[in-house]
Amino acid sequence: MNFRIVGRTVGRVLLLEALLMAPSLIWCAIDGEGDVAVSFLLSMGIILLVGLALILLGKRSKESFQTQEGFITVALCWIFMSMLGCLPFVISGQIPSYIDALFEIVSGFTTTGSSILTNVEAMSRGLLYWRSFSHWLGGMGILVFALAVVPNSKRTGGRLHLLRAESPGPSVDKLTPRVQHTAMILYSIYLGLTIICILFLLAGGMPLFDTLCTAFGTAGTGGFGIKNDSMASYSPYLQNVCTVFMLMFGVNFTIYYLLLMRQFRSAFRDEELRCYLLIFAVATAAITWDLMPRMDSLGESLHHAAFQVSSIMTTTGFASTDFNLWSPFSKMVLLMLMILGACAGSTGGGIKSIRLVLVVKDMARNLRRILRPNRVELVHINGKPVDDSVLRGVNAYFGAYWIILGLSLLIVSMDGFSVETNFSAVFSCFNNIGPGLDAVGPMSNFSGYSNLSKLVLTADMLLGRLEIFPIFALLSRHSWSRRS
Amino acid sequence: MNFRIVGRTVGRVLLLEALLMAPSLIWCAIDGEGDVAVSFLLSMGIILLVGLALILLGKRSKESFQTQEGFITVALCWIFMSMLGCLPFVISGQIPSYIDALFEIVSGFTTTGSSILTNVEAMSRGLLYWRSFSHWLGGMGILVFALAVVPNSKRTGGRLHLLRAESPGPSVDKLTPRVQHTAMILYSIYLGLTIICILFLLAGGMPLFDTLCTAFGTAGTGGFGIKNDSMASYSPYLQNVCTVFMLMFGVNFTIYYLLLMRQFRSAFRDEELRCYLLIFAVATAAITWDLMPRMDSLGESLHHAAFQVSSIMTTTGFASTDFNLWSPFSKMVLLMLMILGACAGSTGGGIKSIRLVLVVKDMARNLRRILRPNRVELVHINGKPVDDSVLRGVNAYFGAYWIILGLSLLIVSMDGFSVETNFSAVFSCFNNIGPGLDAVGPMSNFSGYSNLSKLVLTADMLLGRLEIFPIFALLSRHSWSRRS
Repeated sequence: MNFRIVGRTVGRVLLLEALLMAPSLIWCAIDGEGDVAVSFLLSMGIILLVGLALILLGKRSKESFQTQEGFITVALCWIFMSMLGCLPFVISGQIPSYIDALFEIVSGFTTTGSSILTNVEAMSRGLLYWRSFSHWLGGMGILVFALAVVPNSKRTGGRLHLLRAESPGPSVDKLTPRVQHTAMILYSIYLGLTIICILFLLAGGMPLFDTLCTAFGTAGTGGFGIKNDSMASYSPYLQNVCTVFMLMFGVNFTIYYLLLMRQFRSAFRDEELRCYLLIFAVATAAITWDLMPRMDSLGESLHHAAFQVSSIMTTTGFASTDFNLWSPFSKMVLLMLMILGACAGSTGGGIKSIRLVLVVKDMARNLRRILRPNRVELVHINGKPVDDSVLRGVNAYFGAYWIILGLSLLIVSMDGFSVETNFSAVFSCFNNIGPGLDAVGPMSNFSGYSNLSKLVLTADMLLGRLEIFPIFALLSRHSWSRRS
Repeated sequence: MNFRIVGRTVGRVLLLEALLMAPSLIWCAIDGEGDVAVSFLLSMGIILLVGLALILLGKRSKESFQTQEGFITVALCWIFMSMLGCLPFVISGQIPSYIDALFEIVSGFTTTGSSILTNVEAMSRGLLYWRSFSHWLGGMGILVFALAVVPNSKRTGGRLHLLRAESPGPSVDKLTPRVQHTAMILYSIYLGLTIICILFLLAGGMPLFDTLCTAFGTAGTGGFGIKNDSMASYSPYLQNVCTVFMLMFGVNFTIYYLLLMRQFRSAFRDEELRCYLLIFAVATAAITWDLMPRMDSLGESLHHAAFQVSSIMTTTGFASTDFNLWSPFSKMVLLMLMILGACAGSTGGGIKSIRLVLVVKDMARNLRRILRPNRVELVHINGKPVDDSVLRGVNAYFGAYWIILGLSLLIVSMDGFSVETNFSAVFSCFNNIGPGLDAVGPMSNFSGYSNLSKLVLTADMLLGRLEIFPIFALLSRHSWSRRS
């Protein structure tokens, strides 16, 4: 492991982070909040210093990244970004506890959207803007962003490993032979869709600041609200715009690339897309039916069901109503959706639909093998055989997933909250959703948990967003041994 | 698939079941309950008729069972045994609903111990005896019993498939070259330990009827109580006897065979045994610490913690106190233990310690493979490499496990109980434990659920006891096609 090459990359990403904090200053200027502006400038200074130090200590190398170095770079980037990105909250004094501020910014970058703020509306707009913008940055991945905007160097071999390690899902398709090109296409689609979303929201009469924050939360499938009641006080039109765009940002971006390339047939035949849309339809129908007695009309029932299913299954976490008051059945459907999550290669979190498809197909194959041991079969996705290494990765992911879930549940439950609260809090953070149920429901927040639980949940958010392996690579004994 | 060979085996097991109902008549005679005796005699007549019909319709064959036929035989045996074994409850009118009676007897055979009875103490002793005896029969497996006692035929090739399909755990070791011999050794150890348990309970002054029922519940790790408060009203000595014996019946019986063969070293080096005892010690310590403020002394805290951990992790389900009133942390530990379960090759249910060991080792190997793709590694247990087909089976088991859990949760939650009730009810039935938490806690019962939920939970108990694959084999399209 060559930590000096890794350090240079982390340093560069930090410089980029400091730069991206700058737009928040505009809102400080508009609102005349000089003290908040100062805390931003101070934070930017600190981040620049750390970034420069890492670059200077680091070493320029002609070697390219290996898989393991890719994982570790991604893990370290996210940890540094989070530990420094929460500084404006702390310095401004609006979130005095460092652990709370760290929870909040990790929740932002990982596009979780869980909050420890009891009164969001009391926060300065500059800070709210940075908080929501972190969703947009984390959604597609800041390293992918860096790959897209930083001038190309000759070391292209390592870039794919970075892209693989940061992008959600079990496998990454290179859209074009050059990785930088792929990153640029992904970010162009992301930016384009975000702008369309902004236009639709502005057309519904939403103020510019609300529009930007909501669009960042929707595009990154993050879900930080800037109102205490999340999206409940916005008009049904604005909520419906969000329903559609949340669903769209939960789709694998490769599909949009295929649509741009006019390959409509392979886009609509995609097995993951079909599974994703099927789950959306079934879950919406089930909750609509279940909500009927509580709502005035079928239309209202469908409206809230579709919004909430879209919000939870894409792991956004906006709420159009307090779904914590819904029946146990609807809440159980939402809990299941929390685990499933969106598509691979989207900005959403969770297990991802493709992993569900893979695990079901692999299970069916293994069952057939147990019954008739002499047959050889392969798992196919979209007509192509899936490599056994991908299936092994999926199985390793699931093994780690349940073990981390179990350990987190044990620690978090020491705080004395209900079983429902603890299950939904851990599910929600690990799958990057945002709100949970009961004491961490959509109209409540995570401030009641102890510092230890907040740290565990913060770690869960990072493990969930980076899909476990990069953090494990960082913790692996092998990575730190001198030999390699 | 040759259903006529399968039919003969099922028929024979039914004849055995009718025979094993006879001892209940003794208790009917002692208590002078003629109507209950008549309902037993009627049931035995019906079971004998169905059994004989299956044998006559069946075909003697010289072919031996294949894996798939082994699975299907086991599945059909358990389904027929349950559907007919609940007749005495229904005919006597003491459980008037057939679905309730089916739930109760499946809960017995699968050694779950969940009950729909609101007042156990009102039931006749003959019926209570049959209910508890079903634990003892189901614990080690009625087909294994049949293998042990039915005279040997020449078709020995198929017997191993039966033993494999009915015994809990991912792999079965033949203790001796002959399968019937292995079955006899297993049942001798089982019977011997049960008799020792009975002697210890009698020495504590427990009445004979209570002793037999408690010993059956302990040996089969079933947990049907014959008192409304489970074990809470018995003396601490009797509770401690149960603590020790529950733990012992949760150990892989191969260990006892090794001890009998004086192979102490390989017995105590067994990785699953170590994992099992470690989990017992850690969980007991954690709950003892957590219970301290609620109890009078460290001794009392340790007493209840050890009893409850032993009861839940071996999936027995006896209660020495109402653990539903414990803190969320202790309840979460119990929920985790519900999932883990006992050792493979014991009478306990759950995922089994060996699967936890295997999944952790397989995960670690796959993580290393992801980081360094060029290395070849094997998973070892007790120093021997584990065949990849076993690991594939474990992964298929886990995939199916979580999917069945999710679907069951969805259906059961339609009844409107709390999230805690539903999670613990499904965990408890699927892992053959017995009591859950909240509305299905140790001092409550499952009578509040709808018939649909009861049927789902009944299916979960069977799926859990037979470890999914036999039921899947029964449902597989291939099994029913004409070609094979």
